[in-house]
Amino acid sequence: MPQLLHIDSSAELETSVSRTLTGLFAQTWREQGADHRVVRRDLHRAQLPHLPDAELHYAKRLRKPGSAPDARAEALQAELIAEVAASDVLVIGAPMYNWSLPSTLKAWIDYIHVLGTTVPFDEPNRPFSGKPVVIVSSRGNTYAPGSHNAGLDFTIPPLREVLGSSLGMQVSVVTAELTLAGRIPPMAPLAERASASLEQAENAVRELAIELGS
Amino acid sequence: MPQLLHIDSSAELETSVSRTLTGLFAQTWREQGADHRVVRRDLHRAQLPHLPDAELHYAKRLRKPGSAPDARAEALQAELIAEVAASDVLVIGAPMYNWSLPSTLKAWIDYIHVLGTTVPFDEPNRPFSGKPVVIVSSRGNTYAPGSHNAGLDFTIPPLREVLGSSLGMQVSVVTAELTLAGRIPPMAPLAERASASLEQAENAVRELAIELGS
Repeated sequence: MPQLLHIDSSAELETSVSRTLTGLFAQTWREQGADHRVVRRDLHRAQLPHLPDAELHYAKRLRKPGSAPDARAEALQAELIAEVAASDVLVIGAPMYNWSLPSTLKAWIDYIHVLGTTVPFDEPNRPFSGKPVVIVSSRGNTYAPGSHNAGLDFTIPPLREVLGSSLGMQVSVVTAELTLAGRIPPMAPLAERASASLEQAENAVRELAIELGS
Repeated sequence: MPQLLHIDSSAELETSVSRTLTGLFAQTWREQGADHRVVRRDLHRAQLPHLPDAELHYAKRLRKPGSAPDARAEALQAELIAEVAASDVLVIGAPMYNWSLPSTLKAWIDYIHVLGTTVPFDEPNRPFSGKPVVIVSSRGNTYAPGSHNAGLDFTIPPLREVLGSSLGMQVSVVTAELTLAGRIPPMAPLAERASASLEQAENAVRELAIELGS
């Protein structure tokens, strides 16, 4: 039973580009067969509390003597990690908000990136190593190489660092750009490029869902 | 009455390097004279909810027809913006967590960066333009130019983009590096460099508090 973990973090519930794309991924996943399960984690509709205690960045045996993180936060952390562990593939909707991650998605990252548990500390523990994750990132403007904003996307790079370099997952990235072309008047002439970017992203998402689901 | 807004976001309450440094800034500020007020905003002890509605990224007149963000969230947003507006200088503790901002600080950013209110949309509205802000960033490893991790700090760059380029504030950055030298065994040989970095940061913080408070 190949299991997809379908994560969204957009604060827009109706017109979100990242939600449309992760939804398309999940739909294409399901179309691979009745055994293709999808588990849902909507970080906006069911928000995680901010990580309440810095010691939760560490496995229990590595925490400072005397530290005692809240038991509910520990249980939530264990649940979130188990959910990733139980899934074969992840798709994560990661819209750019103010040049970086939505705080809802950052909170999730801070729960699952744990030294000595999901990331090596004193032993080579990398339980998520090799697990495919597709980051679906939408951004209002263009940040393409050569553009005025090149190098100013701080949404995708920290996700690559955490999920790829640190947790060892196999990261693919799909971006849809210029999503504000319909909303910011001076960007109106970019509407066609925005549509092309979305179409390209839709194709990439479908291809990845088929590749990773088969 | 020069007013400092003293913001912290570290999840460590006792041994935090960023809290130590912002505290030193506030103390030096107060020493400038009895008229030097300090307003406190502790984003970890009194956490903001994640931004509940994407329309809060826009001034009321620019929101989608029919949108109706929660009234308490609107009031909180107005309060946070007024708090910045009322302050002459800001100091912000911004520890790196998993290569980027604490989610608590990102939530604050998402409340105060508002198109048409604090950022220009259809008029050149930049109420925070020129206001000095000191970002005090602590990070476990080194990310200095030429180091193995150069270019992998995604904490300071989005803050520069939001506070500096977009809101128009006058940004200074103080960093304290290698803060995990005392905690991660293979980093133990870096303890001396960590102390030197902290001392340099303490000096920079004191100098900035005097310069901006006089």
